[in-house]
Amino acid sequence: MHHSYFILITLLIFTLPGVHGGNILVVPLDGSHWVNMKVLTEELASRGHNITVMRASNSWYIKETSPHYTSITIPNEGGFDEEVFGTFVSRLLQIRREGASFWIRMSVEMEIMNQFSEMNKNVCEMMAHVFEDEQLMQSLMDAKYDVVLTDPGFGGGVLLAHRLSLPLVFNVRWTIQGEGHFAIAPSPLSYVPFPGAELTDKMSFFQRVQNILAYAFGCWQVEAIVKTHYVEFSKRYFGPEVDYFSLFQAADIWLMRNDFVFEFPRPTMPNVVYMGGFQCKPAKPLPQDLEEFVQSSGEHGVIIMSLGTLVGYLPHDIAEEIAAAFAQLPQKIIWRHTGERPKTLGNNTLLVKWMPQNDLLGHPKTRAFVAHGGTNGVQEAIYHGVPLVGLPLMFDQPDNLSRMQVRGAAKIVDIANIDRSIFLQALQEVLHEPSYRMNMQRLSRLHLDQPMKPLDLAMFWIEFVIRHKGAAHLRTESYRMPWYAYHSVDVMIVLLAAVFFILLTTVAIIRFLCCGACRRKIKSD
Amino acid sequence: MHHSYFILITLLIFTLPGVHGGNILVVPLDGSHWVNMKVLTEELASRGHNITVMRASNSWYIKETSPHYTSITIPNEGGFDEEVFGTFVSRLLQIRREGASFWIRMSVEMEIMNQFSEMNKNVCEMMAHVFEDEQLMQSLMDAKYDVVLTDPGFGGGVLLAHRLSLPLVFNVRWTIQGEGHFAIAPSPLSYVPFPGAELTDKMSFFQRVQNILAYAFGCWQVEAIVKTHYVEFSKRYFGPEVDYFSLFQAADIWLMRNDFVFEFPRPTMPNVVYMGGFQCKPAKPLPQDLEEFVQSSGEHGVIIMSLGTLVGYLPHDIAEEIAAAFAQLPQKIIWRHTGERPKTLGNNTLLVKWMPQNDLLGHPKTRAFVAHGGTNGVQEAIYHGVPLVGLPLMFDQPDNLSRMQVRGAAKIVDIANIDRSIFLQALQEVLHEPSYRMNMQRLSRLHLDQPMKPLDLAMFWIEFVIRHKGAAHLRTESYRMPWYAYHSVDVMIVLLAAVFFILLTTVAIIRFLCCGACRRKIKSD
Repeated sequence: MHHSYFILITLLIFTLPGVHGGNILVVPLDGSHWVNMKVLTEELASRGHNITVMRASNSWYIKETSPHYTSITIPNEGGFDEEVFGTFVSRLLQIRREGASFWIRMSVEMEIMNQFSEMNKNVCEMMAHVFEDEQLMQSLMDAKYDVVLTDPGFGGGVLLAHRLSLPLVFNVRWTIQGEGHFAIAPSPLSYVPFPGAELTDKMSFFQRVQNILAYAFGCWQVEAIVKTHYVEFSKRYFGPEVDYFSLFQAADIWLMRNDFVFEFPRPTMPNVVYMGGFQCKPAKPLPQDLEEFVQSSGEHGVIIMSLGTLVGYLPHDIAEEIAAAFAQLPQKIIWRHTGERPKTLGNNTLLVKWMPQNDLLGHPKTRAFVAHGGTNGVQEAIYHGVPLVGLPLMFDQPDNLSRMQVRGAAKIVDIANIDRSIFLQALQEVLHEPSYRMNMQRLSRLHLDQPMKPLDLAMFWIEFVIRHKGAAHLRTESYRMPWYAYHSVDVMIVLLAAVFFILLTTVAIIRFLCCGACRRKIKSD
Repeated sequence: MHHSYFILITLLIFTLPGVHGGNILVVPLDGSHWVNMKVLTEELASRGHNITVMRASNSWYIKETSPHYTSITIPNEGGFDEEVFGTFVSRLLQIRREGASFWIRMSVEMEIMNQFSEMNKNVCEMMAHVFEDEQLMQSLMDAKYDVVLTDPGFGGGVLLAHRLSLPLVFNVRWTIQGEGHFAIAPSPLSYVPFPGAELTDKMSFFQRVQNILAYAFGCWQVEAIVKTHYVEFSKRYFGPEVDYFSLFQAADIWLMRNDFVFEFPRPTMPNVVYMGGFQCKPAKPLPQDLEEFVQSSGEHGVIIMSLGTLVGYLPHDIAEEIAAAFAQLPQKIIWRHTGERPKTLGNNTLLVKWMPQNDLLGHPKTRAFVAHGGTNGVQEAIYHGVPLVGLPLMFDQPDNLSRMQVRGAAKIVDIANIDRSIFLQALQEVLHEPSYRMNMQRLSRLHLDQPMKPLDLAMFWIEFVIRHKGAAHLRTESYRMPWYAYHSVDVMIVLLAAVFFILLTTVAIIRFLCCGACRRKIKSD
């Protein structure tokens, strides 16, 4: 009896799809990107997979030891530095507040690009370290990984997967080539807004001009960075015949951290899987003191505010204005704020160093979310159906929030020109105009009504790649072609040449015949 | 106690997604297309939806009464005629056997186009009948349908959905604009083969030229038919401001009858759902006599042959050659053949008027499938992992089979030049070269390994459209734009003009300054 039970259980284990313990090498990005990747690695580990995470010795967020992964630590001194970044954010805010001219904004743009270039240089240096450490390379080969899971915001994982000849899965929203889709799918610029241009899928003629110019500038930036670092690296270690862009586009599955409730609809590819909101889950009960504070709000409910991981504290005068506006509301406010306590702070506002954001967003008393517009926060707001007051700072934040604003689920306030009356007006609009809540709850219903939970879908496709050693049948042939062939430029030239040749020949023949006739006519005259 | 049970059951019914009895108007296509649509309508009915099917009074396949739908019959005399079609197929085969010249083949192409145009004309006439029958229109309005489900091979359903202002779901592989994707997704002709060109996703330069020419010819054909019938219809009943192509592209969900095991990977759109193989199911046991015949094949196994619904019988001499080849094999053969019994028929071959094709394909003794290459048959072969010997005749059949051949899962034989030795050689190659079976079984594994069964996915999205009254968030803005805006032609012209203007101005200024300098120089000399 015991024996047959054992067989039954063994059979069950071996027939349940995916539970066969894959061996997964994770090459993550640090910072808020790791928050996302960690959700995937934890879920993979809980499904019986063996996870190895490659991290930098000076990693900001990625711990060396964890119950759910083994780590490989690469010595590093450069790269993603919290302090440098904090200073940079403050300076950016400063410039925006001063109402900078076009040339100053361009110089900031160039500085962002240089910072980004430095970070990519650091990634390539770390990868060179890995490639040249023979013992490490041997142990990576011996480990017989099934797949490399990487965030292609930087290209390290792509290089390593190629070196180890392993299938490749992306956990992606941004790539070195810009927003994920722009690196793989056709993107008609007439209705696909280029990231950073803060445009929608309905553009006027001048907006379309702006979109194309933004795209051209973006391409130039990307080319410069990729050529300087990755193409050089690729040549050095893989030889001149290997094209870095092809390595990138050869990824088997692109797990995209958005969906079409968040993003405007646009062309996509068969190997793009949408897992937007995969990190969201139903709210858990709040700690008792927080629950009591929330309940004390009565019928008015609470507002929560957080500006994400990169903004430790706001400039003091801005914080004062925000606090003063909050003080005038009947709602209770929970504000994640690590700076000095504003003097104008009302009794209704609770300052916290950290908050259980997901549990608060899912609380029935929560009326609005004041956010900087990072993807994670916006996705959580959609999941729980809480309308937004947006204070975007940089990166994708203005674009993320403008997507919510154009759907009537958010109100954007320019943080550079904020004062208590502007902010109060925005808060009151979102609180009292029912359309904000209704629109966000409609988005929430659409987001939640999917054939499968986004996290389960992501697990399915990672395990699919393990089961079938890739997903080549979902990958187009396009990336192997030179650009002129991809765009059929060569064919069009030949066809046009053929048409011209036929036209010219016809004209020549007609002229010859006519002239012949003319001459004969002249002779006969 | 009873009362609380009642509440529990009521709650269960109202919380189970999709089980709320939608009201669905189905506008199908006749013939083999109805075989597909019937699978969907039966499944929808079994899930508690109320189905109404619109059919022609002279329908070939669609019955007036059915346990799973109510029908609305539209008086009709023209349209899809089995006899006309049979004659046409025979003539086509005749022409191919005679090795027709380019011009004869073009004339056949034009005749197909005329036949197709006639059928579309008939569809518009039927729809005009519906639109002008006030009583019928009133009853259609009163029925308060939730959604129109149609096969957009013809455009009747699209017109009716617009008239009734209803959400629209397509059960689609072909549209009036050609293969479904070409009507909605960007299709780079450098690696997306145009249907009918029998090309793959890896094309030489000359194949790319061929592909673009095939596309241009196809567009011209489509334009002619759509303009003649649908655009006229649309103008007459909806006014000049309604663009027929926009109505078509505004469909909420495109349930595409293929997937990327069958089709080459290519760009797609957010509202395209792949349900290829949705009609396939595990094999049921065979009737006893057939099972005995199959078992009598011993270790050699059986071959099954069927040329689909359109080819009632083959020309007698071809049937003789096929029978003679079969007679030389140790396998048993089950052949769906309705014509005269070939004289060369061996004892190993069983002629049948109808066969349980799916159950035979799923039988472990089945070694190969001789098929004409209709989508349904090829999908069933993939599902069950049975390699193909292809005898394509027309429509999408050569393309379908060439997709299987390029993946090493099928061998195509030209039916026009078939003789017993050519056919025997093809059969033996597929039977004895293990790669055919291995490749087809690999395709089968990929096809079966999906996050959700294709039929369940189709049900989900139809019910999604019912729940949310459409799926506008998955539909791009592209179809509202004029072609020059979609392709950014206007923007490019303005940008080029700006560049020229700047260049010319610069040159003019330089010339002015130089001349000024020259003049001064001349003066001073």
